[in-house]
Amino acid sequence: MPRFEPKNPDYRTVAAATFDRQQAMRTLRISIARLEAGEVELSMPYSPDWTQQNGFIHAGIITAGLDTACGIAAFTLMPPGSDILTVEFKTNLLAPAKGERFAFRASVVKPGRTLTVCEARAFAEADGVERLIATMTGTLMALTRHS
Amino acid sequence: MPRFEPKNPDYRTVAAATFDRQQAMRTLRISIARLEAGEVELSMPYSPDWTQQNGFIHAGIITAGLDTACGIAAFTLMPPGSDILTVEFKTNLLAPAKGERFAFRASVVKPGRTLTVCEARAFAEADGVERLIATMTGTLMALTRHS
Amino acid sequence: MPRFEPKNPDYRTVAAATFDRQQAMRTLRISIARLEAGEVELSMPYSPDWTQQNGFIHAGIITAGLDTACGIAAFTLMPPGSDILTVEFKTNLLAPAKGERFAFRASVVKPGRTLTVCEARAFAEADGVERLIATMTGTLMALTRHS
Amino acid sequence: MPRFEPKNPDYRTVAAATFDRQQAMRTLRISIARLEAGEVELSMPYSPDWTQQNGFIHAGIITAGLDTACGIAAFTLMPPGSDILTVEFKTNLLAPAKGERFAFRASVVKPGRTLTVCEARAFAEADGVERLIATMTGTLMALTRHS
Repeated sequence: MPRFEPKNPDYRTVAAATFDRQQAMRTLRISIARLEAGEVELSMPYSPDWTQQNGFIHAGIITAGLDTACGIAAFTLMPPGSDILTVEFKTNLLAPAKGERFAFRASVVKPGRTLTVCEARAFAEADGVERLIATMTGTLMALTRHS
Repeated sequence: MPRFEPKNPDYRTVAAATFDRQQAMRTLRISIARLEAGEVELSMPYSPDWTQQNGFIHAGIITAGLDTACGIAAFTLMPPGSDILTVEFKTNLLAPAKGERFAFRASVVKPGRTLTVCEARAFAEADGVERLIATMTGTLMALTRHS
Repeated sequence: MPRFEPKNPDYRTVAAATFDRQQAMRTLRISIARLEAGEVELSMPYSPDWTQQNGFIHAGIITAGLDTACGIAAFTLMPPGSDILTVEFKTNLLAPAKGERFAFRASVVKPGRTLTVCEARAFAEADGVERLIATMTGTLMALTRHS
Repeated sequence: MPRFEPKNPDYRTVAAATFDRQQAMRTLRISIARLEAGEVELSMPYSPDWTQQNGFIHAGIITAGLDTACGIAAFTLMPPGSDILTVEFKTNLLAPAKGERFAFRASVVKPGRTLTVCEARAFAEADGVERLIATMTGTLMALTRHS
């Protein structure tokens, strides 16, 4: 039973299509691992290209994954013809982003006609163990797409 | 006259070296445009590789520039032998990140022995005009480097 | 010369009236010290009633002053018939809130038809010296008032 | 089975004592409803004294409850002789704070020797129904108390 009732029966298709149009996700090799109404999980492999001075993934890159996860989660609950915009987000970095793979899990806390609030968590996977490395709270805004 | 008195006379050298060890900055082609005690400006050219679904630079990439700007600004005021860690940040996205080049300007609001608070602004440059596109407030933590 | 052009010629009157309808401001004895288009300063005397465990003013009370300052600053730029709502804010506590009086200064960073982003700073005044104690970034939303 | 292992066997007593020393909590008539290792619930009755312009509880007062809930939750996991300080927090306001009573529930997301990250939610209770009205993510810092 879904926690939220999507307004768009094609929410999976349009959400996946919006994700696919994000060139940044392709560049970062981030893919959709799970997609439900109001809930998204993205997955990213480690790459030395995105590291900061200690060899961990840069906080901005972790934030890119968290932000897109929030955006797609919010987007699944929006009516047909919507576009989505990030208003703001806040990230807490809890542990070094070291691992072979990273998971970004977002869920909608409060959907709204104009504004939707999401929460997301980033996990690092190393040696089969998953560790919480960051949290995000974000506000997303629905726009009517001008086609 | 500097607003802040650096504790490390070599602050420029060590801050630039820390920046240079961030592979993510190289990948994003971000460079240091200005570096003072407690103040940093970074510069990034546009690339289609970093775009979201509307062709603007992804908020996470803007955040990567803002975060590193904050980190380096904080780092310039830390004593020799320090390492720097981002505790948290908050980004407000004010306008679409479209332009030929992007500037990330950070300054220290409150330096501290353990925690330093910085503010940063991101600007998009297009046709010779600069536009404010995002703000960040971030908390950075000084660590003693184990060499 | 004002930084922002108010949409409501009576912005001072309506902003002051909205402030006056906030019973919480009266309870906290917060008053308007300055009111311009997009800029507000509020003032609050110290009271032991609002202290936390160390005798400093509670962060939530400082936040109340900062949030209302942001709200009123945003409100001065809204069209006639608007109401104002806080979407979110982020506060960094920089120094203990100890002093005889506290100032909350907010200014609009980015006005918008729906969303306005403000920044604010809280200062503690003690022995004629003013000290920065907290910062806020906040997002405010304009609503059409239903009268 | 507790999620976290408290470092201070007297954590309930010292956490309750710290709460009791917050005069602001008494003034707001906030009380402890539940206190576990890493988890706290506070309760506040409605009062017209704390309202904003529409008769709802002011966001700063909701934040005061959330902040203290986070602080006490973090404090339960700290070693004997600690004091606690709020570094920063971020609040999203999700619905009007109207109701007869308000609950503030905080839990520790990541305890640390220096910094602890907590999340909290505020609920309004009206006619026996509870509604989520706000969320907080906060960073708290442990200090060694100088007695």
